[in-house]
Amino acid sequence: MNAEIIAVGSEMLTPERVDTNSLYLTGELNNLGVEVTGKCVVGDHRDRLAGAVREACERSEIVILSGGLGPTEDDVTREAVAQAMGRQLVFSPEIAAALERRFAQARRRMAEVNKRQAFVIEGADVLSNDRGTAPGQWLEESGSAVMLLPGPPHELKSMFERECLPRLRRLAPPQAIRTVVLRVAGMGESDLDQLISPVYKKYQNPVTTILAANGEIQVHLRARCATEAAADVLLAEVAAPIERLLGDRVYSRNGDPLEVVVGNLLRECRATISVAESCTGGMLGGRLTSVPGSSDYFVGGFITYADAMKVELLGVPPEVLKEHGAVSQETAEAMAMGARRRTGSTYALSVTGVAGPGGGSELKPVGSVYMAVADEAGAHTEQRQLLGDRERIRVFTVQMALDLLRRRITGSCG
Amino acid sequence: MNAEIIAVGSEMLTPERVDTNSLYLTGELNNLGVEVTGKCVVGDHRDRLAGAVREACERSEIVILSGGLGPTEDDVTREAVAQAMGRQLVFSPEIAAALERRFAQARRRMAEVNKRQAFVIEGADVLSNDRGTAPGQWLEESGSAVMLLPGPPHELKSMFERECLPRLRRLAPPQAIRTVVLRVAGMGESDLDQLISPVYKKYQNPVTTILAANGEIQVHLRARCATEAAADVLLAEVAAPIERLLGDRVYSRNGDPLEVVVGNLLRECRATISVAESCTGGMLGGRLTSVPGSSDYFVGGFITYADAMKVELLGVPPEVLKEHGAVSQETAEAMAMGARRRTGSTYALSVTGVAGPGGGSELKPVGSVYMAVADEAGAHTEQRQLLGDRERIRVFTVQMALDLLRRRITGSCG
Repeated sequence: MNAEIIAVGSEMLTPERVDTNSLYLTGELNNLGVEVTGKCVVGDHRDRLAGAVREACERSEIVILSGGLGPTEDDVTREAVAQAMGRQLVFSPEIAAALERRFAQARRRMAEVNKRQAFVIEGADVLSNDRGTAPGQWLEESGSAVMLLPGPPHELKSMFERECLPRLRRLAPPQAIRTVVLRVAGMGESDLDQLISPVYKKYQNPVTTILAANGEIQVHLRARCATEAAADVLLAEVAAPIERLLGDRVYSRNGDPLEVVVGNLLRECRATISVAESCTGGMLGGRLTSVPGSSDYFVGGFITYADAMKVELLGVPPEVLKEHGAVSQETAEAMAMGARRRTGSTYALSVTGVAGPGGGSELKPVGSVYMAVADEAGAHTEQRQLLGDRERIRVFTVQMALDLLRRRITGSCG
Repeated sequence: MNAEIIAVGSEMLTPERVDTNSLYLTGELNNLGVEVTGKCVVGDHRDRLAGAVREACERSEIVILSGGLGPTEDDVTREAVAQAMGRQLVFSPEIAAALERRFAQARRRMAEVNKRQAFVIEGADVLSNDRGTAPGQWLEESGSAVMLLPGPPHELKSMFERECLPRLRRLAPPQAIRTVVLRVAGMGESDLDQLISPVYKKYQNPVTTILAANGEIQVHLRARCATEAAADVLLAEVAAPIERLLGDRVYSRNGDPLEVVVGNLLRECRATISVAESCTGGMLGGRLTSVPGSSDYFVGGFITYADAMKVELLGVPPEVLKEHGAVSQETAEAMAMGARRRTGSTYALSVTGVAGPGGGSELKPVGSVYMAVADEAGAHTEQRQLLGDRERIRVFTVQMALDLLRRRITGSCG
């Protein structure tokens, strides 16, 4: 089966924006054994969009549209698809009532224009949106299934998973695709590839893809077989030697991100964590608390951006700052010890560095970062020299600090 | 004039790759006054690509293809365009000789298959490639100009600049495009549209687009005229009444995000800021410090996730927590006052709320958020009821807290 994806929105025809929803959708479709044979972006233009939908339906069994379901005049997807299929739009009092309830919940008055979102193409199933106001739609016509999904990625993903995947599974011929995702810390992409390519290059199935982003690397192994059991056997055959080569650098085999892995470790040993952040300015705490239920182990922390704050809030001795500087092993250690002392947490994690673009020196250039983890046995520090812009340096620092904590808890560092 | 861009290559239909050439091309075309009305990705499939080219030529005056000009069987762009136009491919001994020379220069033998790159569509101009082996092609047919460009971005850019821009300038009538972007806080998309659509709907030019993301709204106005001066006059005519309607909710007219606007305000009045975060766990500090040079005004802050931390680190009275709860106006105020007292900053900004998915109650459901700003005059609190998942609630909270601070500094709140 073939699929086409149509992203709707004039803003995606500007020099600044790319459609990323299609990447997520492509991954999910591939998992079902469905090939994506084309994708396109169409502006907020009803006739052009109707034309694109008509052409896609002639070529492909599955057509997915994202965006253009909002309440404004710009949002033409409903009208365009109805036009392409020669069907009417029907007002749904149920959807209108659900919209009214949603606004009432937020204690806001619903604008009249929002009623546009209550129009459904004749014969379409309504797809519920648990993250926003725009309902989606699913319709089938002469061998093609057409889906109308909202543009915001978190709305689209939730709707696709809950509403579209079960329907697609009924349409797509059964085929087992199984995936293993190894998430790896503390290694560069090319080093990793050099290490594991002798293993994966021997196989066409599973397909191995190496992805690098935000200071971590993911190794994706994807096997396609007639049965799940056969796919699992094939996956294990390739994954086992790769995992042996990577050892402790693999922190997750089930897709969990590092903040979830670390949180689970803390919860298991009934430990708590606090943070002391300089160059990351709160991002480390922000990431640890992005996990629902993180209040089980995260108590709080200190953002000590100015040096005076390191002294006053964390008790870093002024002479340490004077002698070694704010970006130093000694300061990182004193920050972690101070945070642990003042919060009473089991572990404390600190970060200090030069995120740039200013503030670098010959001895401590932009990208110089110290991280420390403190526990009852004392403090352990690591230093890294990172490349890139301010944003990249800060994101990588958070990732490496979390990995330092992980290795401390599992006993493989310090 | 309208343009469409077609990216060719099956690898761009995988979950990992996006076409970025189209962003560069869109920017260049917009500068010429040419609008991109659609773009698509087609795999290495001759008939499908020929169909896409035919359709694009029917709709648009300019059609640009990137990729598929390599020497292998997978590279079908030349054949597909010839097929779409009903023209022949002609072998060019000159191109073949140039290819041979290029290989000789690199002291490599040219493989026989490279001769595929020496075929030119009947009547096409050859576009020289100074960064690779694949020559491009330019052809015109019944009102459409069609360009075949190589896929690697550095080859494409160089060829487009040297070979295509001069030709396009001859085709495109001279015209200027000017843009205004208004960034707006504290308003929903549909409310804003209802407010300003009576203004912008009167105009086809400038084109108005409303974009919503992460708790803010952007209003894009784009005018096309014969001269820049005329475009500016037109823009001002539409932007002025829109700005009057939106008033103080417009926080930026030059594209600056809220953390930059707030930072500039603080710097201008030589003020400093500290934060006290509960449900956002550090994200507010993280965003304030994402701006280079934020150490001019950001001193630090407290992440007080556990209630005990609110008492110990910020001096929130235990009876306030007991009587009103951690998510309350009183706690938000005490947090901001405590952060200001303990850091000595001019302003302190606090946030406490229920980010969910757990922790909600009937009185304080998930999404209930209190924000407070403290300064020498005291503390001012605002309450919001947000919708969505944990991530959305936290991102929106940060945005609204920054906007509260902005309005406090400019004197329009509390």
